[in-house]
Amino acid sequence: MLTMAQPGDDELLSAAVEAARRGRAEGGIPIGAVLAVDGRVLATGWNKRVQLGSAIRHGETDCLENAGRLPASVYARATMVTTLSPCDMCTGAILLYRIPRVVIGENRTFLGGEDLLRSRGVEVVVLDDDRCTGLMRDFIAEQPSLWNEDIGVEG
Amino acid sequence: MLTMAQPGDDELLSAAVEAARRGRAEGGIPIGAVLAVDGRVLATGWNKRVQLGSAIRHGETDCLENAGRLPASVYARATMVTTLSPCDMCTGAILLYRIPRVVIGENRTFLGGEDLLRSRGVEVVVLDDDRCTGLMRDFIAEQPSLWNEDIGVEG
Repeated sequence: MLTMAQPGDDELLSAAVEAARRGRAEGGIPIGAVLAVDGRVLATGWNKRVQLGSAIRHGETDCLENAGRLPASVYARATMVTTLSPCDMCTGAILLYRIPRVVIGENRTFLGGEDLLRSRGVEVVVLDDDRCTGLMRDFIAEQPSLWNEDIGVEG
Repeated sequence: MLTMAQPGDDELLSAAVEAARRGRAEGGIPIGAVLAVDGRVLATGWNKRVQLGSAIRHGETDCLENAGRLPASVYARATMVTTLSPCDMCTGAILLYRIPRVVIGENRTFLGGEDLLRSRGVEVVVLDDDRCTGLMRDFIAEQPSLWNEDIGVEG
């Protein structure tokens, strides 16, 4: 399976980083995502735990929600681009909709369900992007308990 | 691991069935869920794909959303009760929040991530309830393409 970055991945990740920054500017958790279809951004999302008091609006799920109801044939041509390795819930959402490719900004801060995605045939690309790592490092230093809440950990 | 029904499970499932019926009465997909903590219903949810045009509001995730932001210590005492075996996304949401017990109405219509839940230490109880099976049988006979959309399948 090809697991290398493709032309356009950097630009899509930049859009996800922009979404993460917007979330942080709103007082939220700086994780952003875009759903790209045929190389173009179809929808953008960012974590809205703080903004909406939401337990399920992570970057990826917010992006899927903003994309609306789509036929399976569209998901089949999609790439989920996210600034941070997807948690169990977002991993499951990607699997539910059979999205075949996931581009991840970084997995140093948090390693999600990448192995499960690969075991189910999803192509996973990790770009190890300094902007993504920096956003999470600064956020966790400022609000460690909010971060723990978002990944289901006490404290 | 104990994987037997406990006193109170039937009553909790009845609340989830009631939620599923309410969703169907709204024109939606008849899958409902309740989040029980210390044996009492903390939150109720049902699939809102049709009602909200939502790609992520399944029974279980809608229930988690309605429960709001909770500390990990509450999820640790919770049971997710759902009328239908949880899809990959809802399986992942249960794992994210480390909910230790899942009670499932039926898994004849659809078998979700039960093995993954068990492999991560979650207790899974399947009640094989005729009300749940009947709701889905009637719904799928009436709207097969809507059901396929909800599980990410074309058609």
